[in-house]
Amino acid sequence: MAFVFPVVVPYFQVDQQGVVFNMWYLAWFDEAMSAFLASIGYPYQSMIATGVDVQLVHTELDWRGAARWGDDLVVEVSADAIGTTSFTLAFGVRVRDEPIASAKTVYVAIRTDGSGKCPVPPALRAALESSMRE
Amino acid sequence: MAFVFPVVVPYFQVDQQGVVFNMWYLAWFDEAMSAFLASIGYPYQSMIATGVDVQLVHTELDWRGAARWGDDLVVEVSADAIGTTSFTLAFGVRVRDEPIASAKTVYVAIRTDGSGKCPVPPALRAALESSMRE
Amino acid sequence: MAFVFPVVVPYFQVDQQGVVFNMWYLAWFDEAMSAFLASIGYPYQSMIATGVDVQLVHTELDWRGAARWGDDLVVEVSADAIGTTSFTLAFGVRVRDEPIASAKTVYVAIRTDGSGKCPVPPALRAALESSMRE
Amino acid sequence: MAFVFPVVVPYFQVDQQGVVFNMWYLAWFDEAMSAFLASIGYPYQSMIATGVDVQLVHTELDWRGAARWGDDLVVEVSADAIGTTSFTLAFGVRVRDEPIASAKTVYVAIRTDGSGKCPVPPALRAALESSMRE
Repeated sequence: MAFVFPVVVPYFQVDQQGVVFNMWYLAWFDEAMSAFLASIGYPYQSMIATGVDVQLVHTELDWRGAARWGDDLVVEVSADAIGTTSFTLAFGVRVRDEPIASAKTVYVAIRTDGSGKCPVPPALRAALESSMRE
Repeated sequence: MAFVFPVVVPYFQVDQQGVVFNMWYLAWFDEAMSAFLASIGYPYQSMIATGVDVQLVHTELDWRGAARWGDDLVVEVSADAIGTTSFTLAFGVRVRDEPIASAKTVYVAIRTDGSGKCPVPPALRAALESSMRE
Repeated sequence: MAFVFPVVVPYFQVDQQGVVFNMWYLAWFDEAMSAFLASIGYPYQSMIATGVDVQLVHTELDWRGAARWGDDLVVEVSADAIGTTSFTLAFGVRVRDEPIASAKTVYVAIRTDGSGKCPVPPALRAALESSMRE
Repeated sequence: MAFVFPVVVPYFQVDQQGVVFNMWYLAWFDEAMSAFLASIGYPYQSMIATGVDVQLVHTELDWRGAARWGDDLVVEVSADAIGTTSFTLAFGVRVRDEPIASAKTVYVAIRTDGSGKCPVPPALRAALESSMRE
């Protein structure tokens, strides 16, 4: 079962069309990603403490609906693919059980010392793989 | 030649990694889109005045670099494809001539009265097509 | 006892000093205000349904500390003053019981039909006054 | 004469009331402050290079009007007061020559090494004082 991160849509994210402006989906996905990593036993802050961080190299979003002020959203997060130096998370956004958006984001593991890409840490890989079997 | 929209990176868009947080690229593209439409003779506000608006249905972004506080960016915008009820814009972001991100976004034309999708207005289609021949 | 609104600091609100950028306090206060009004039995959306909205005319903030990514904050909200056409809310932000910011904001009641200021609705006045006696 | 920083209101800063959401004024003031410091010969980045940064300890804003999408704003910035370890800037926002907001913000000088408050650097003090005599 996918991990679920709840969002109550704040007023400041709603534009004059009365719907959430597109960029805020990426803000939710970032928060949901941190919560997802914590949920599989690999908190983002621990990763950084080991000298590894992640950077976005690709994201794609599809919208089929809209979110409005005060909506109770759920953002589903699941591991979609794991490579040598990168992994992909899939996101789905639902309002009252209706899917309104979906996305995939590719994260590359980098060293926090600025020396560039590095392998996905084994413990993170194991945690992501384990989450895919559930 | 592609239309160019300048951005000076504001402090509030830079995160604790010292680089622009991913969602702000979508903010820039939205501003650049408005400026691009104005540049081809079809200001967004005029479109809305005729009862037509646009909605994002898809966007995809690729990053190969990062932007930092105070960077003078250029966002290039060009029409990439034109369908019956939608059109696609391509975006490129460069810092000191180095490309750091690219994106494509699909916009669907909708009626502002809430009745849903509609054909791309002929004047907008003509303006987009003309921009592709330059 | 003051109403308390919880905030977990999202990554995108933290700047390159590693602390929450100042403007996001106003985002939290806006969310906390909506939740506070709901808690005293006067949801913001109900107010708008009766043709009344509120506008900020004044806010003042004092900072004595900082918030960081992932911090569990509490935003305390209480009614501070009630006038004929306006009311004032007081906000306090605490991290691990340490106060880091406080603020007061003055809201003016306006008609949603664009005709300008109007008296604070009697039911809202009663709810605010009642909250001050608790 | 006050320093003037121009802002074209982006779509994402406008809420469903059709006006700029309150927090974005602080974003503009932050950008205007950086530009103001550069204009008086003391760029923010130079200050940081000398081991000094600034932190907001107080801000107060008054609104008497609203800004809308696409508005060409001017943000006026001037030095208002200079203390031992702090200085105050005054901001005014005008749309088509009509004042819509004003603010004062108090900045405290801090050392970037984390050791706390420090005197306003003499060169910054001189630049601020000089700007007040113009």
